[in-house]
Amino acid sequence: MAKDSTISLQVIRRLPRYYRFLYDLKENGITRISSRELAQRMRLTASQIRQDLNCFGGFGQQGYGYLVDQLYDEIGHILGMDQLTKTILLGVGNLGTAVGNHIDFKSRGFNLIGLFDDNPELVGDTRADMVIRSTDEIEEFCRREKPEMAVLCIPKEAAPRLVEVLVGCGVKGFWNFSHYDILHDYPDVIVENVHMGDSLMTLSYHMVQEEN
Amino acid sequence: MAKDSTISLQVIRRLPRYYRFLYDLKENGITRISSRELAQRMRLTASQIRQDLNCFGGFGQQGYGYLVDQLYDEIGHILGMDQLTKTILLGVGNLGTAVGNHIDFKSRGFNLIGLFDDNPELVGDTRADMVIRSTDEIEEFCRREKPEMAVLCIPKEAAPRLVEVLVGCGVKGFWNFSHYDILHDYPDVIVENVHMGDSLMTLSYHMVQEEN
Repeated sequence: MAKDSTISLQVIRRLPRYYRFLYDLKENGITRISSRELAQRMRLTASQIRQDLNCFGGFGQQGYGYLVDQLYDEIGHILGMDQLTKTILLGVGNLGTAVGNHIDFKSRGFNLIGLFDDNPELVGDTRADMVIRSTDEIEEFCRREKPEMAVLCIPKEAAPRLVEVLVGCGVKGFWNFSHYDILHDYPDVIVENVHMGDSLMTLSYHMVQEEN
Repeated sequence: MAKDSTISLQVIRRLPRYYRFLYDLKENGITRISSRELAQRMRLTASQIRQDLNCFGGFGQQGYGYLVDQLYDEIGHILGMDQLTKTILLGVGNLGTAVGNHIDFKSRGFNLIGLFDDNPELVGDTRADMVIRSTDEIEEFCRREKPEMAVLCIPKEAAPRLVEVLVGCGVKGFWNFSHYDILHDYPDVIVENVHMGDSLMTLSYHMVQEEN
């Protein structure tokens, strides 16, 4: 499998979508698919699909198409789905509870091993089959369990202090729902920001365009 | 203000980010900013910023920079932030509750006017200062209130039946957290899909690359 560090972020962002569609094909018992058929299902062009998959060495054969199982596994491997990175979640309000319950971390390469909140009324409660710990315990927990990823479902104001602790304990990746700009202060960590409001504004843009 | 329907989706997706950064500048009392300074804050290049904003007619003046207030208002206008589209939310579980409470719809061009769930234990409860209605009431509610956007926080299986009702009632836009492929069945509506799992897989990809 060729890996190319110059692969554009756009292509990378499409990989999870390929992975989802291939999963559905597998579930429906489809073992082989042409780039044309896959393109139709994904509303892409066949040439874009061939181009995207060529970035990773290309998997298909002219006139034969792609083997669904193989392509699924390869893309899963590229995305790191075949390993489980230890993960903790900070902030178990509505958002953190939704993320903890709604997201299947294990099938996305992460193993959620701890939940933390600074609200004493939540500490000791259970979410996603785990007991909520106090944020005071984070440092000791991290030194012991060595999580490498943290999900931040905390307010922006609370984030800088906690991120400092986490980075100090060796956390390398953040799935960041807070609006704190982590990369500004820690340019070497890996951050995936989730700005749900941006998605909503994009929808607004398209609805406004439609009216005009 | 020039509008150009050929603007790439990439540029459009960056607009909410400009809008957020400009909001912060306003909040910090900054009235004027050069493309170089804005670029530094946003981790873009000055030329990319000039290019992006030129798609919409360009706002800056050589050697003077951008007026923060004016640029904020203009981008807000492009994004449709100066109107309020009537919106309903379906599915008031953890995810729907988080979305209803966590997202400031009004500052993103939408007015949340109704919550619906098919769980009889939730119907009559209050979330985000609204009473949860039964999904049985959706059609009558839509005929009366004419919402144009629906947020779907429901399972994939429940979505097709409800989307059929909503499209029939004139709902034109969907903020879709379910994994139902709305555009496949209704190519003419406007859909913004939120696949949080894709974001998580992208983070996994970057963490795996870092290790190699």
